[in-house]
Parts: sequence; C-alpha cells; structure tokens
Amino acid sequence: MTERLRREFSGQDEAGVLYGVGLGPGAPDLITLRAARLIEGAQVIAYPTLAGADSFARSIAADLIKDGTREIVMDVPMSVERQPAQDAYDKGAAEIAAALDAGHDVVCLCEGDPFFYGSFMYLFARLSENYRVEVVPGVTSITACAARAGMPLAARNERLTVLPGPLPEDELRARIAGAESVVIMKVGRHLAKIRAIIDDLGLTETAVYVERATLPQEVVLPLAEAPEKAPYFSMILLTKGADPWL
Amino acid sequence: MTERLRREFSGQDEAGVLYGVGLGPGAPDLITLRAARLIEGAQVIAYPTLAGADSFARSIAADLIKDGTREIVMDVPMSVERQPAQDAYDKGAAEIAAALDAGHDVVCLCEGDPFFYGSFMYLFARLSENYRVEVVPGVTSITACAARAGMPLAARNERLTVLPGPLPEDELRARIAGAESVVIMKVGRHLAKIRAIIDDLGLTETAVYVERATLPQEVVLPLAEAPEKAPYFSMILLTKGADPWL
Repeated sequence: MTERLRREFSGQDEAGVLYGVGLGPGAPDLITLRAARLIEGAQVIAYPTLAGADSFARSIAADLIKDGTREIVMDVPMSVERQPAQDAYDKGAAEIAAALDAGHDVVCLCEGDPFFYGSFMYLFARLSENYRVEVVPGVTSITACAARAGMPLAARNERLTVLPGPLPEDELRARIAGAESVVIMKVGRHLAKIRAIIDDLGLTETAVYVERATLPQEVVLPLAEAPEKAPYFSMILLTKGADPWL
Repeated sequence: MTERLRREFSGQDEAGVLYGVGLGPGAPDLITLRAARLIEGAQVIAYPTLAGADSFARSIAADLIKDGTREIVMDVPMSVERQPAQDAYDKGAAEIAAALDAGHDVVCLCEGDPFFYGSFMYLFARLSENYRVEVVPGVTSITACAARAGMPLAARNERLTVLPGPLPEDELRARIAGAESVVIMKVGRHLAKIRAIIDDLGLTETAVYVERATLPQEVVLPLAEAPEKAPYFSMILLTKGADPWL
C-alpha cells in the first residue's frame, strides 16, 4: 500500500495537494479560470528555471501571484547529461513533499499543458505515488500556433502527427512523408535540417513558421520567409491534408 | 482585392469581428480568461446544434452568457451526405455576416479548440476572406483526458499521433503499430473495432479509456474494463513510448 493510500484509509490524510497547472502558450489571458483561481489562492507555488534564467512559466502567471506566496524554484542546469537535471528535480520534489507534509497545497506552474512535453511529469513521477496530484490541463502551443497562423490543424477523419525537431533527419523525413497534418515542435537549432527535409518533400508552400505564439514578440511567417535562427519556442505547421471546407 | 482589404484600405472598416472561441473540454472553469471576457461582453453569440439537440458548447459557457445576448443557432441535420450540413453552415455564415456588417462582433462558441477537429473551421472557410476573424485557442480534449487519466502524453523527443476512430481498420492498425504515444478520438460506435486492433497488437495493458473528460459524468477506466458502448465524446490513450522519469 502506498503512503498516500495508507493515509487516506486511516482518515488521517492532512497532506496538501500538488496541482500541476497548465498556463497556456504565453498570453496571460489564455490561462484558464481554474488555473487563475488556484494561483491566486496558492500558499506555495513551484516552477523550474533553466540555468538561472527567468522562468517563462512564472512570467505568464506573474499578475496572479499574491505577495507573500512562497516560491519553490527548481534550477535545472544546462547539460547534455541527465544526472544534473535529475538531481534538480529530486531536490525540488523533496522541497515540495515537505510543503505537502506540512499541510500546504503546492501549485506547480507549467508552460502550455503539464502532460504535453512538459517538465511537470518529472515531478509527477516522483510524487504521485505518495501524494494527491491534480493536473489542470492548459492550452497547448500547437493549437495556439494554429490559431495565430489561421490554419486549422485537423478536421473530420484527418490524422495529426506531432514531431519534436531534434529527431534524427531520416526519421523526421519518413514521418513527415507518411503523415497528413504535421506539427514540428522545438524547432530551435534544428531549423536548417527541418527546412531541407520539407523542401525535399516539396511541401514548403504548405508550411508556416511560428515563433513565440500569442506573445508580443510573436512571429508568424510562411516557412520560405522564416529567419535563419529560430528560438526553442518555435514551431512549424504543415497541413497538407487539412481541408477547412465542409 | 478582398472585400475585407478593400474596407481596411478605405478606412471604412466598421464591420464587426468574428471570434472563434475555444471553450475547452467541458468543465466551465477550464474556459480561458480571454474566452470568458469575450462571451460576457458579446452582443451576438453563435453555435451549432446537432439535429435539434441541446448545444454542448452553449452548456459549457452558459453561466457567462448575459441576458439579452442575441443567439445565432446553426442546426446541423444528421446525415451521411454532406450537402445538408453544408447548407446549414452556409445559412449560419450568412446570418453571422449580416451581424458583422451591422457592426456587431460575433462570438462563436466552440467545444475544445476551434481548429482541432472543430466545426468552426467551416465558418472560417466561409467568412475569413471577407471579415476579420480571431481564433481564441482552447484546452483540447486530448490533454484533458491525459490529465484525468494521470497519463503524460509525450515528453522529450517522443512522437504523438492523433487518430480519429472512424478511420478504416487496416489504416488504424498500421498507424497504431508504427506510433509511440497515440490518442484515438471520436471512439463512439467504433469501440469494438479499435479494441480488437489494440488487443491484436498486445497493447491493451497500456490503454486507457476516457469518456466525457472533466464533466460530472466522466468515466476513466483501463481499456480492458471499458463499457460495451461508447459515446461520441470518448477517447483511448495509448502511451507505449512515454516515460515520465527524467
């Protein structure tokens, strides 16, 4: 029996609840009503930062965070190896567990949706066996990019494939060739590779490049006009199959 | 030059804006702050109904709709042929266009996200050339189901494939076999076919069935325990590739 079930059965579950809260793609008003209420009422919030940089998740929610809210910051170092990041999540999970044990709810701030390419799942893996965890879904970057590009992603019986840009070239090529609508996430430094594949497949005219969707610095361009350098939060949409007419 | 650009260049664009507003999977507090503000302030709202039944979209937003808001209802008949539905969207688009021409903004209510298997794209196809259209993305059913099932959809460089349940059996089988994380939408009357495929592929233990995610009548079960009959708003999640540990 897990620690959580033991407490629940004994009627002594006074531990707090961990909320993994999706904040959407970046515009603060694309936060859901439920997420806003949880953040405004939070005693403790938690979020990761990357190598000491400002937290994008915290910036989306900033206007909702009340003075006096305790903040657990998990600083994840940049490294090709996994161990340093694992250590950061282990340490963060221990701090969160201590707050939950003290009876406080903890609201973890997550860009986009917690279970869609989000780092919240590393906390979920570490804590869901012993604590109550509620995941609040958020607007993902893929539908935000489609909205801003004016490109319906999928209709009727169309298939949709989501591919991370860092995949190997041969795999990306084969997956794109065999797909209908395609979203390529995390374009970043893989832009040149992805562009060459899409060009080879004769699909450049159907492709749109979107960077920082819904933020003031947003960029939406036909792929042919995309810049040479792409940030991590960039995406390419290919909707060769989509037909918006009924 | 389109009618819209002609008006914009002439400085005489007094037509209203059409908002396609995603409402999320069903729980009213999974509506975004932007969508809530638009609905509360709307002079005119529009939404489809299916064969005279109540509108699911309207029910999600009901508490936000002010008395006196004009409602444009597009009743879409049930039919295997496309023409009757096309006629319903043609008629709805004409009513919406008349409201926009009169200078009113129109807020179209959309279950989930407007560009993710939503009927809003039929209005978008008919109206976006001549009117300003803003799409407000919403929480999709796929991340809502993942949240409720406690199943991360995709992490790191994993691929995610979204497949509609009505696809032919052979295609579904091949696509599922070649995928990592899979979401099968619109399960409904295709449940037996999909179950047989997943069984054949030896994946039943990794599969979760979710019905009406985030609503009071929600059902979340291992696929092996799913009911015999599934409603249209049901989904199967298969995350054979997903590993939530970092």
